[in-house]
Amino acid sequence: MTKITRRHLVAASVPLALASAVQAAEPVPAVERWGIFEQAFEGPKNGNPFDDVALSSVFRSGEQSLTVPGFYDGNGVYKVRFSPPQTGDWAWRTVSNVPGLNNRTGALLATPPSPGNHGPMRITPDGYHFAYADATPYRQIGTTAYAWAQQSDARCAETLATLKASPFNKMRMCVFQNVAAEPIEPFAVTGKGDKDWDPSRLNPLFFQRFEKRVAQLLELGIEADIILFHPYDSKHGYGDMARADDERYLAYVIARLGAYRNVWWSLANEFDLVKTKSPADFDHLGQFVMDHDPHDRLRSIHNCKAIYDNTKPWITHSSIQNGSAVTDDTRAEIYRSIWEKAVIFDEVCYEGKIELRWGNLSGEDVVMRFWHGLIAGTYVGHGETLTAQNLSADDSWTGKGGKLLGESAPRLAFLKQVMEDGPKPGIDPVDKWWDRHIGGRAGQYYLRYFGVEAPSEWALNLPKNELVGGEQFRVDVLDTWNMTVTPVDGVFTVQKKNMYDFFDPARPVVALPGRKWMAVRVVRV
Amino acid sequence: MTKITRRHLVAASVPLALASAVQAAEPVPAVERWGIFEQAFEGPKNGNPFDDVALSSVFRSGEQSLTVPGFYDGNGVYKVRFSPPQTGDWAWRTVSNVPGLNNRTGALLATPPSPGNHGPMRITPDGYHFAYADATPYRQIGTTAYAWAQQSDARCAETLATLKASPFNKMRMCVFQNVAAEPIEPFAVTGKGDKDWDPSRLNPLFFQRFEKRVAQLLELGIEADIILFHPYDSKHGYGDMARADDERYLAYVIARLGAYRNVWWSLANEFDLVKTKSPADFDHLGQFVMDHDPHDRLRSIHNCKAIYDNTKPWITHSSIQNGSAVTDDTRAEIYRSIWEKAVIFDEVCYEGKIELRWGNLSGEDVVMRFWHGLIAGTYVGHGETLTAQNLSADDSWTGKGGKLLGESAPRLAFLKQVMEDGPKPGIDPVDKWWDRHIGGRAGQYYLRYFGVEAPSEWALNLPKNELVGGEQFRVDVLDTWNMTVTPVDGVFTVQKKNMYDFFDPARPVVALPGRKWMAVRVVRV
Repeated sequence: MTKITRRHLVAASVPLALASAVQAAEPVPAVERWGIFEQAFEGPKNGNPFDDVALSSVFRSGEQSLTVPGFYDGNGVYKVRFSPPQTGDWAWRTVSNVPGLNNRTGALLATPPSPGNHGPMRITPDGYHFAYADATPYRQIGTTAYAWAQQSDARCAETLATLKASPFNKMRMCVFQNVAAEPIEPFAVTGKGDKDWDPSRLNPLFFQRFEKRVAQLLELGIEADIILFHPYDSKHGYGDMARADDERYLAYVIARLGAYRNVWWSLANEFDLVKTKSPADFDHLGQFVMDHDPHDRLRSIHNCKAIYDNTKPWITHSSIQNGSAVTDDTRAEIYRSIWEKAVIFDEVCYEGKIELRWGNLSGEDVVMRFWHGLIAGTYVGHGETLTAQNLSADDSWTGKGGKLLGESAPRLAFLKQVMEDGPKPGIDPVDKWWDRHIGGRAGQYYLRYFGVEAPSEWALNLPKNELVGGEQFRVDVLDTWNMTVTPVDGVFTVQKKNMYDFFDPARPVVALPGRKWMAVRVVRV
Repeated sequence: MTKITRRHLVAASVPLALASAVQAAEPVPAVERWGIFEQAFEGPKNGNPFDDVALSSVFRSGEQSLTVPGFYDGNGVYKVRFSPPQTGDWAWRTVSNVPGLNNRTGALLATPPSPGNHGPMRITPDGYHFAYADATPYRQIGTTAYAWAQQSDARCAETLATLKASPFNKMRMCVFQNVAAEPIEPFAVTGKGDKDWDPSRLNPLFFQRFEKRVAQLLELGIEADIILFHPYDSKHGYGDMARADDERYLAYVIARLGAYRNVWWSLANEFDLVKTKSPADFDHLGQFVMDHDPHDRLRSIHNCKAIYDNTKPWITHSSIQNGSAVTDDTRAEIYRSIWEKAVIFDEVCYEGKIELRWGNLSGEDVVMRFWHGLIAGTYVGHGETLTAQNLSADDSWTGKGGKLLGESAPRLAFLKQVMEDGPKPGIDPVDKWWDRHIGGRAGQYYLRYFGVEAPSEWALNLPKNELVGGEQFRVDVLDTWNMTVTPVDGVFTVQKKNMYDFFDPARPVVALPGRKWMAVRVVRV
């Protein structure tokens, strides 16, 4: 759990009337590394503050320099938010086309992060996993509640309480609501019709509300995978703006939210269903986000039936919809091998009982998909269409948040513990493409998952990589549904069996209970 | 079967001594469309003809203009080979740094193709299949005999006789032999050591021999998938030349062989094992081939464990090694969806009995992989490590050609007939990602393959796409191993079953014999 430090707000909010001579007498504000340093300035209220006022602030520390964009927060208040990537002294100077906002200067001291603040998410050097900036491994167990942030405060509080008791550490969430939500819109409303809104004027009140949700997730240690565009809003058409309007919106969201260290950018949900934007449009917008985000948050784009070209340099990791891929680790692994990037199967169908096939998985099916994804060296996302009173799926967890009603979440907590007990930074497929279905780290750790199979034993044949003979391993039998870990007595001492395998001739198999959802964990002693 | 027209050779071979005035009196030579028009010129024998002499010929017909590179064929003879892409009158003019080779002019008449000449291979407009230039579908059933072309004439004749009686219509073959071969080298030998060769001087005798094999394949209607580099030749190091030497070699091979309409370029086998070339090097070389080949032959690159970035524009189709991918159509399909290109699994392990796991598939396994690949909308390649006298696998079909000893080839002929009886240009996955395992063409044709399953019946539920109800289908039960087609009596008249399926409530299932290797074919009446 982490807490956002806000004590700097007082020190850094400098009324426009004060001269820099006065500023110099101010104490240097302190903010922890990866926290948020926010400056607020008074500026013009007239005209269109979103188009007429340009504001950024250049932050320097030693050789490092970052240009951080500002944003308009309404009532003549302009803000710049900066999350220091390094500890130490930072100096800043604003750049603006408004004289009163230009050439403002100041300093801050970035202090070491407080406990629980591990920094923003990064891709690990091998390219396939996630870790916080301080190198703490991140074991992604994501969920999706598309429009939770736009619901009532009461519903949001319920969602947060649910999350707090859950294993989930990433939330996929839309800026533009995709189901019914509170009557507050992201753009200025200009009339009574759904299409009566002004794309050139964002609504600070909407975003104040939205960013509060992001901050609340951060307090729970949950990453906010913010979906910037989607195809589900023919009512307003927020996904169908012109290029310049898209860019204004993106610049605003980046400036406003990008300093939160738990933010990830998901360019779109089901990009291929956004009929007004081509893959080339999304390439431009993805590049735009990369170019305009000084905090360099993770970036992905999510598909429906057409796969986006994930080789694009702005894509930090793959965000895939293909539920069938994670019913077999060898399928899931293909995405990883092709792109040589970290892969999250963010949509693999949801736990539920609706007639639509994307929303009627059993809890067992959901958990099974997470496990296959893990063995493949990839990650998986959860969702739920269940509702208490046979409401529409729109009212479910994945529509609006609230309560979880399914059976998968506790089993995903068990899975998460297995991941945390496993190798750093994560599980890789071992001897891929030979249908071994083993993930782990060669020579050290092996995980074999059996899914719907119900074997009564497993031949413990370890792929030869990193083995010379004489290595000893302990073995656990895991029941991934009943959440039990049963150690196997003694150790397995392996020797060469054939050109490809090592085994213990004294105990060539591990006994299994003949039930579904079992796994075997083999750990070097 | 096609035959290469060579009657133009007489007319077009113009001794250097003859002036253009004399040429004007010559009759205009004729060559069929997609045949080969070859010009031979006498030129310098001194110096290094490969580096010192630049020769190309510009061919014009109406608005179309193609610059065709020439090559040195030894003994002071320089040649230009052109395969006219269109019928009609063509005029040509040479460009050379050698005065006697420069500004030579002439004409040719490209006549309609003879029967059996369907032109070079192209990717179909949908991006996923192959067809000859005249739009005849090409049902790829490839095989591999890496160094067949470098063997004795007797062994080559045996290989050709085997091919003639086989279903195979593509041969993967190396320029640089990867196993023992006849003592003739692609480069000029300068001493007695294996490394004593001059990369700046190609050996025309080697290539005359090699191109004869390509022409012989063309006579059999077999595509020549020519592997330009590979990692298996540490002895000579032909795969480890410097950039300029690689380019000279490629330019030579392109000029010499590119006019053969059955040529495909495979930049490398197992590119990732060629330690002296990076993916960026191969990107350069692939682009080089594209830029220098006026005949625009197909281009691919083949992997071992690392997947090449197949989004590169010079890659016309994907050439994949991953045997496990084609044990499940849903795995195989992923490659297709990601790259939106035609995919050939050119190496899926070979039929054989050697200890090495890449060469010990049963015939059933090989055939099964072809079928799964087909259902996925992809294509598969064959190989064989069997030898009659327990020789090394180097001496097998896939090493040197010769005789086929396995069981898969006749079953691949059966498969090929099923493909030819199927939709044009090929089979696509139908309702992918829902584990239906159906390929075909929605509304018209469905193929369900069961592989190692041995069901006693199959519920005929057709995905809803392109169906409205009332459509009638006939059904065949195929035994893909015993090569039988058993029609099911009567027709199936489908109606909507649920949100996703159509079926015939009067006969919801098709009876099956409970054996492995079965398939069901459903064809619109």
